[in-house]
Amino acid sequence: MATTVQPISPAAVDELAALRLELADFSTVELAEELPRMDLADQALRFRLLPKDRALAVFEEFDPVHQQELIDGLKTDFVREILESMEADDRAKLFDEMPAKVATRFQSQLSAADRRQTAQLLGYDPESAGRIMTPDYVSLRASMSAAAAIERIRHLRERPRHLDVLPVTDGHRKLLGTVTLADLVSADPDTEVAELIASEHYQVSTDTDQEEAARLIQEANLNALPVVDHEDRLVGLITWDDAMEVLEAEDTEDVARSAGAEPLDRPYLSAGVFMLARKRAVWLLVLAVSASLTVTVLNYYETYLANVTVLAVFISLLTGTGGNSGSQASVTIIRAMAVGEVRFSDAFRITWRESRVGFVLGALLAIVGGPVVGFVYGWDIGLIIAVTLLVICTWSTFVGSLLPLLAKKVGIDPALVSAPMVSTLCDATGLLIYFSVAAVVLGPALTG
Amino acid sequence: MATTVQPISPAAVDELAALRLELADFSTVELAEELPRMDLADQALRFRLLPKDRALAVFEEFDPVHQQELIDGLKTDFVREILESMEADDRAKLFDEMPAKVATRFQSQLSAADRRQTAQLLGYDPESAGRIMTPDYVSLRASMSAAAAIERIRHLRERPRHLDVLPVTDGHRKLLGTVTLADLVSADPDTEVAELIASEHYQVSTDTDQEEAARLIQEANLNALPVVDHEDRLVGLITWDDAMEVLEAEDTEDVARSAGAEPLDRPYLSAGVFMLARKRAVWLLVLAVSASLTVTVLNYYETYLANVTVLAVFISLLTGTGGNSGSQASVTIIRAMAVGEVRFSDAFRITWRESRVGFVLGALLAIVGGPVVGFVYGWDIGLIIAVTLLVICTWSTFVGSLLPLLAKKVGIDPALVSAPMVSTLCDATGLLIYFSVAAVVLGPALTG
Repeated sequence: MATTVQPISPAAVDELAALRLELADFSTVELAEELPRMDLADQALRFRLLPKDRALAVFEEFDPVHQQELIDGLKTDFVREILESMEADDRAKLFDEMPAKVATRFQSQLSAADRRQTAQLLGYDPESAGRIMTPDYVSLRASMSAAAAIERIRHLRERPRHLDVLPVTDGHRKLLGTVTLADLVSADPDTEVAELIASEHYQVSTDTDQEEAARLIQEANLNALPVVDHEDRLVGLITWDDAMEVLEAEDTEDVARSAGAEPLDRPYLSAGVFMLARKRAVWLLVLAVSASLTVTVLNYYETYLANVTVLAVFISLLTGTGGNSGSQASVTIIRAMAVGEVRFSDAFRITWRESRVGFVLGALLAIVGGPVVGFVYGWDIGLIIAVTLLVICTWSTFVGSLLPLLAKKVGIDPALVSAPMVSTLCDATGLLIYFSVAAVVLGPALTG
Repeated sequence: MATTVQPISPAAVDELAALRLELADFSTVELAEELPRMDLADQALRFRLLPKDRALAVFEEFDPVHQQELIDGLKTDFVREILESMEADDRAKLFDEMPAKVATRFQSQLSAADRRQTAQLLGYDPESAGRIMTPDYVSLRASMSAAAAIERIRHLRERPRHLDVLPVTDGHRKLLGTVTLADLVSADPDTEVAELIASEHYQVSTDTDQEEAARLIQEANLNALPVVDHEDRLVGLITWDDAMEVLEAEDTEDVARSAGAEPLDRPYLSAGVFMLARKRAVWLLVLAVSASLTVTVLNYYETYLANVTVLAVFISLLTGTGGNSGSQASVTIIRAMAVGEVRFSDAFRITWRESRVGFVLGALLAIVGGPVVGFVYGWDIGLIIAVTLLVICTWSTFVGSLLPLLAKKVGIDPALVSAPMVSTLCDATGLLIYFSVAAVVLGPALTG
């Protein structure tokens, strides 16, 4: 769907000048937000009107999906220039998004060095640290003086984007540690780089999980984290901004899964109806099939329902409340695990706490709800509802806190223990509790 | 609950030496994770065994809640030293966590400059940019040369933590822009700082919302963001690591609310049973009261249920499925809003898309579920279930996508439109749909 440049009338020239002025009022961030919302022809037009530096900056802020769309509307020369100016890791992400044929064509137009870098990054596992590291860094030798190191930085032919943290290596590219540019600048010029190496050393390997690397950056407040290969040789740096992006994507994934949907992996508005449906269909089906458990339970107790029809009236209220208190517990535990506050060895402590929380909440609902129901539907029904609320809340809070811990233990993403899944599981067991309590309270009037 | 230092036996001295060695094996991040899990006496003991620099680094990584607990177990002198070494914004957070009396006592022990800084930060609104900015920064004059600027940094009496981004001001402390240390170092020594100012300028005011400032840092990849007062005078910097913390806390809040719970604002394990219950009780009650709508609906249709008891069997399955598809939609939209992908003006486009997504999902479930139910319970019941699934899914996906948009419009946090809330609302309307469909299919056999 390539858009072509139309011949331009004199009136249109004025319009373009006005548009150019208008564009100057927006910041890069604003443009990166607004442009993808226009149709492709309008995007491409505005893009070509921007000064080149700004155009490149805006392009880099685009999501890879939007980058790929926009590229169709730009001239090949400009695309090549964009691709060359991009950081290697961003370029790899964009190639990943493109149809293989298009990616190959553009890759062949890159300089040999850029092509090699990109190919190398694309060789790492998509979820690995290798994929998000930048191979553009300046490394120092431990034996250099601070002054020599600064001279080296000052006279770089191509300056990498990130210079705040500089890895230090020995003669065999083995990583020894990092120094900060601030330390280099503040140090006495004769100080050896070796003396300036940060006392605490963190590094990850190319196949470390991205999320793990990003959390380390966040927890240790690392401006950049060196990445090494299997021989401990430096191959790249992960910078804090890439870590933020990874954590945002992980949170988006957790949030989507918390409601039984898979993450879109692309901006919402660029996903079509069928893609959205596909991301949700599997879980919705799984949940509906699990929910047929409730059909089995209710079917089993159909005589109870026929004998005392009023019991049917509370089904949704009770299962809903059980599902809600279970979801509250599971979401709390899933998040605490995601940010590293709890782990499986805390399982006993957590489930015991949560059961008590559920008991407190159940007691509260029973005290509020029991008398109201009793007043309207009779005291026996009120008693049934009060006791059921108490037991259901305790039980579902226990289940809701236990499931994510178990998932973690067996190596499943705890976020997959979604609120809907907990609700569905608590529904069937909640009904069992309900009818058991009813049978005790009402006796033969119900069961007979 | 102050712990006191016990007199130490010779055997214990060996043990302490062993413990000290053991501690040396852990990184700062690991210690900051492990120590708060021990009881206070053990924490304080290990803390005192750490070299002072490391102890300070570990302490800073603690959550304010844990910092406050630990302080009780440490000697006053050491506490004073810790407080002095902390960044002003972290110190403000800690004082916030302390009982007012304790905070006042410690504040009085600070140096006049530190005390003034902290008091100033504590004067800003807790959710504001002013609260998380650091007042420790080095600002440059636009007329300086790069060489003079570097000399200035080299000869600072006290070096601030953050030096990668340096704000530039005029003679009246008015912010002109920022330069990066990397640019200063790479530039020709005679270049004026004014020429190195980043072309794109971002700043926020002390009363800007924290989340907004943090998102700006993330979106514009700013290493640090200058904060100005109402006269545009520079007062502080927000650094990327503080932005990451804010975004993590915001995500935790959104996640908690997505399941109808309020965020704990403290690490999970340090919250007691009653605190956990309190954070969930209000929503659970509100939802239970809303769920009484389902009681009203079911009560209204009690004659239907008495006439055709088998209808009761599907109540949980149908309301559950409606709730699930509604939650999937609401969570997707809430997240897309949180990360800035969609806004209220997209409302029509979104709800129209989502209704179609719901229709597709509903059709899928109807095709799978209808025949199965028909085979077991009779074809009229199968038809009722199939049609109801189709309508319920379409409707609840529409509602689930509309509610967060409406919440945003009227100024409520969209995350408060929790999955449980959507489920509860869809439950009652879903039952109305169910019985209406049943009435059409079964006619007088049901209603008579």
